[in-house]
Amino acid sequence: MHRERFYTLTASCPDRVGIVARVSGFISAHRGWILETAFHAEQPDEGGGVGRYFMRIEIRANSLPFTPDEFRERFQPVAEELGMEWKITDSAAKRRVVILVSQQEHCLYDLLARWQSRELDVEIPCVISNHDTFRGFVEWHGIAFHHVPVAPDNKAAAYAEVRRIFEEACGDVMVLARYMQIIPPDLCAAYPGRIINIHHSFLPSFVGARPYHQAWAKGVKLIGATCHYVTADLDQGPIIEQDVIRIDHTDTVDDMVRYGKDIEKAVLARGLRYHLEDRVLAYGNKTIVFR
Amino acid sequence: MHRERFYTLTASCPDRVGIVARVSGFISAHRGWILETAFHAEQPDEGGGVGRYFMRIEIRANSLPFTPDEFRERFQPVAEELGMEWKITDSAAKRRVVILVSQQEHCLYDLLARWQSRELDVEIPCVISNHDTFRGFVEWHGIAFHHVPVAPDNKAAAYAEVRRIFEEACGDVMVLARYMQIIPPDLCAAYPGRIINIHHSFLPSFVGARPYHQAWAKGVKLIGATCHYVTADLDQGPIIEQDVIRIDHTDTVDDMVRYGKDIEKAVLARGLRYHLEDRVLAYGNKTIVFR
Amino acid sequence: MHRERFYTLTASCPDRVGIVARVSGFISAHRGWILETAFHAEQPDEGGGVGRYFMRIEIRANSLPFTPDEFRERFQPVAEELGMEWKITDSAAKRRVVILVSQQEHCLYDLLARWQSRELDVEIPCVISNHDTFRGFVEWHGIAFHHVPVAPDNKAAAYAEVRRIFEEACGDVMVLARYMQIIPPDLCAAYPGRIINIHHSFLPSFVGARPYHQAWAKGVKLIGATCHYVTADLDQGPIIEQDVIRIDHTDTVDDMVRYGKDIEKAVLARGLRYHLEDRVLAYGNKTIVFR
Amino acid sequence: MHRERFYTLTASCPDRVGIVARVSGFISAHRGWILETAFHAEQPDEGGGVGRYFMRIEIRANSLPFTPDEFRERFQPVAEELGMEWKITDSAAKRRVVILVSQQEHCLYDLLARWQSRELDVEIPCVISNHDTFRGFVEWHGIAFHHVPVAPDNKAAAYAEVRRIFEEACGDVMVLARYMQIIPPDLCAAYPGRIINIHHSFLPSFVGARPYHQAWAKGVKLIGATCHYVTADLDQGPIIEQDVIRIDHTDTVDDMVRYGKDIEKAVLARGLRYHLEDRVLAYGNKTIVFR
Repeated sequence: MHRERFYTLTASCPDRVGIVARVSGFISAHRGWILETAFHAEQPDEGGGVGRYFMRIEIRANSLPFTPDEFRERFQPVAEELGMEWKITDSAAKRRVVILVSQQEHCLYDLLARWQSRELDVEIPCVISNHDTFRGFVEWHGIAFHHVPVAPDNKAAAYAEVRRIFEEACGDVMVLARYMQIIPPDLCAAYPGRIINIHHSFLPSFVGARPYHQAWAKGVKLIGATCHYVTADLDQGPIIEQDVIRIDHTDTVDDMVRYGKDIEKAVLARGLRYHLEDRVLAYGNKTIVFR
Repeated sequence: MHRERFYTLTASCPDRVGIVARVSGFISAHRGWILETAFHAEQPDEGGGVGRYFMRIEIRANSLPFTPDEFRERFQPVAEELGMEWKITDSAAKRRVVILVSQQEHCLYDLLARWQSRELDVEIPCVISNHDTFRGFVEWHGIAFHHVPVAPDNKAAAYAEVRRIFEEACGDVMVLARYMQIIPPDLCAAYPGRIINIHHSFLPSFVGARPYHQAWAKGVKLIGATCHYVTADLDQGPIIEQDVIRIDHTDTVDDMVRYGKDIEKAVLARGLRYHLEDRVLAYGNKTIVFR
Repeated sequence: MHRERFYTLTASCPDRVGIVARVSGFISAHRGWILETAFHAEQPDEGGGVGRYFMRIEIRANSLPFTPDEFRERFQPVAEELGMEWKITDSAAKRRVVILVSQQEHCLYDLLARWQSRELDVEIPCVISNHDTFRGFVEWHGIAFHHVPVAPDNKAAAYAEVRRIFEEACGDVMVLARYMQIIPPDLCAAYPGRIINIHHSFLPSFVGARPYHQAWAKGVKLIGATCHYVTADLDQGPIIEQDVIRIDHTDTVDDMVRYGKDIEKAVLARGLRYHLEDRVLAYGNKTIVFR
Repeated sequence: MHRERFYTLTASCPDRVGIVARVSGFISAHRGWILETAFHAEQPDEGGGVGRYFMRIEIRANSLPFTPDEFRERFQPVAEELGMEWKITDSAAKRRVVILVSQQEHCLYDLLARWQSRELDVEIPCVISNHDTFRGFVEWHGIAFHHVPVAPDNKAAAYAEVRRIFEEACGDVMVLARYMQIIPPDLCAAYPGRIINIHHSFLPSFVGARPYHQAWAKGVKLIGATCHYVTADLDQGPIIEQDVIRIDHTDTVDDMVRYGKDIEKAVLARGLRYHLEDRVLAYGNKTIVFR
């Protein structure tokens, strides 16, 4: 992580000779100073075909003679030549993170501590919850709190409200910080790659409800957590980050829940950070994570 | 692990008041010196009922005035009073481990290195394989090698032969050290809790064939291995030990296979050790592992 | 962790035959129901001599016919017979934890989140800090906040004040949650085994100031944190818990500080929990931790 | 790791604008297909000055119209322009690894298992040992074995012999696979960055002899191993790889030795692999490891 302002170019395109030269040549022709680079060639399928090339380049902002918008304009011909999907972001433009939470505090406290210390250098325009539990805590931090109850008979209206709040807040990313509700398909579809969840198991094991109970019944020796993008397919979206912790026969389900919280908040924080730093490039149902 | 000779008492019984006192009182009444103890109370099901109590006690052999056989006779009334399942083993009686292997060397080399250095202080009467690949290596160590080919049309005969060899070798435990064949149900049933397998995934994820391919397709960020007792239910027997290793998008399936080998051999060695030291008490489809 | 009220007996004594039988016999004679036990025999030094025996036993409170005080009286003869150092605590008597903090929020937020969710089931009578930074945050939680500035020329007075506040708060344990000051020897001596620090390195590497800078300069591939009891010998007290996280050449000192915070708060929380549950028995400069 | 033949270019030079463009432009001008790239900018010291840029690029061999030698000739002007230290290696030219061992088998078995399975795709021209213990095992693998006893009064002669054997074997790298002798300064100086050691502690903790005894005495909760380049400064050379394993109070020094072996062989194998794949660029007393 750099302290000075920088732009981050992320892109993917069909693999071929000369991609790195073409892109880095463009940057260097404008005297752009590269701070950090990462490239990855995803192999073609076994049946043959063309692989796909992914990249992420950080460029010192004050080394370039133009704005991000002008960069976009000038780089477009290069991108077209290479058949690229791409974007460029500016470290000076803070992302707007909307947090959804239910009644467990561990992820919320963890995210707000990181935000307080500016480790998580974002705007948090608001927190949305289906309970009123954390209103005081959130508002004490100077962050707006929206209580949007979700009941079996009001789901459509409730999620319309969530969406309205998110739009009004100009949210870039929605973080489900142990939000114990299933996001409806239309909301998933509205924000592909912009809703991040923390699931309390090492996926693909123990999809759905009460994963620690499932883990206990199975007698596994490690439990985990998974940070992933939310899609309409429950707990099946592209995985961003995972981790595990060792347990043993002395641990009850309550103990596993307690241990699990430590993994959940760490994995969510790492996954969110990778996303915010444009380190995650999803393709198909998988991710490239340029750590 | 102690250097002097000791007996290991393992037992389980319905939980009640006074179990520890009754058992340790018996030992102390005969001046038995306890080297190591572990107890565990498994809670009753949520619906109520009685919990189950598990224990493992190491007693210095020369502190007791009698042999293991005499211990068995004298302890039997205590065990009956408590409704115990129990056994006592003698560290001086080396276990006989029969290794089954196919064509991958990593677990075989690892086990034989541990055996050579006496870290794995057992007899290895023979190695059985469905290929002749490792005959020279095994025989160089002074261990008998049996080539028992397995083909679709000879399975019953092949496993009858495996069983005959194991019996003739007076095997205590059969270790599937990446033996790439499915053990038939009758063989599983013949040796419950005596056949140990290493599966190359973090179960319950990726059961069955080609787990690394499955893991690659899913895009998980950690891969693992599982050491478990073999039952007729493929890859579903009680788990003894598991571990994982971090991977990322740069790792191909070949890389995952390579990383996985390091986890497989470590997890198998640990699981086997726990078994040989009578640290594993299976109940239902789970295990207590007194590390 | 049990949900019902229980007593925890911890003890150590010279090793001999019959300790477990004597203690468990006492408990069982009064119909005490044992929930959890752990024993450990520390070997005598190589030169010979007598080993030392350590134990921790949880007993269901309502299974015993007497109070903790009566237990103390009745058990005393057994303890004397065995030459024991011992104590018994009551899960119903909440510990009083006083937190000392400077200007970093990660450990403070983490501890208060655990306290809010009752995972950390203690009283926090007050937080003491050499800065006023977290007054609002702490007071919002309904916890008293004391600002005790520490300057080179007022150290004696400042620590007298810390001690007065701790005494007035009837503190059981003092937690240095990244309190960036050196505790003077007389304060250490006043509360042996009752002051817990989190040091931001994997001790014994990188004692003292700026351990992440030291780690960066050395080029280590993992960094860590250590939770330990504070003694007059800087960063040398008995270690309770440690952990590490992987880093690489791309990580600057700032990155290491950031990663380190995650390890620090996790290690402090685990170490404190072990202490509060009477799982830590210090002897010499080491600890037994009955997890 | 790729299956097809490739060249690996590694280089470092003072940081400036246009390095990536210049190098990748050269490769692309000759239609070179880049398989894998890694770049790293090491920040200048706090006092200012120029940073240093490091790179590693894998190029598909058959995409280039010339041999490695011709590459060297043609690339030299680019390298001079950028002030580079650089080299290019060919995956088809197998490295020659000479193993030095004493009387512990774990690293030796582990390396030979990897070599047998071609995971470690190198030539092992010979094994050198100060004991004759493993002659049979090594020779069974078709590898020459040299017994070079080392006694207090013959060190100079012994290491001259080691050097002669290494030279005669055309060794590229010397691996100290728990070779329990101190390499003399002149031998270190003769092969900078070409002698790799595995030390049985998490350096910088526990330098020198009997690190597990030191760790036991200190009461640490994790033990580790360190793979590093050997320099004349004992256990202080640039660190390539490290890892740790959790221990607790029940573990004796013997147990720690046993656990430690598993970490040692894994860390040595990883460190050696990084070295053989030209992933390690040492600078000063630190390393860049492009995993």
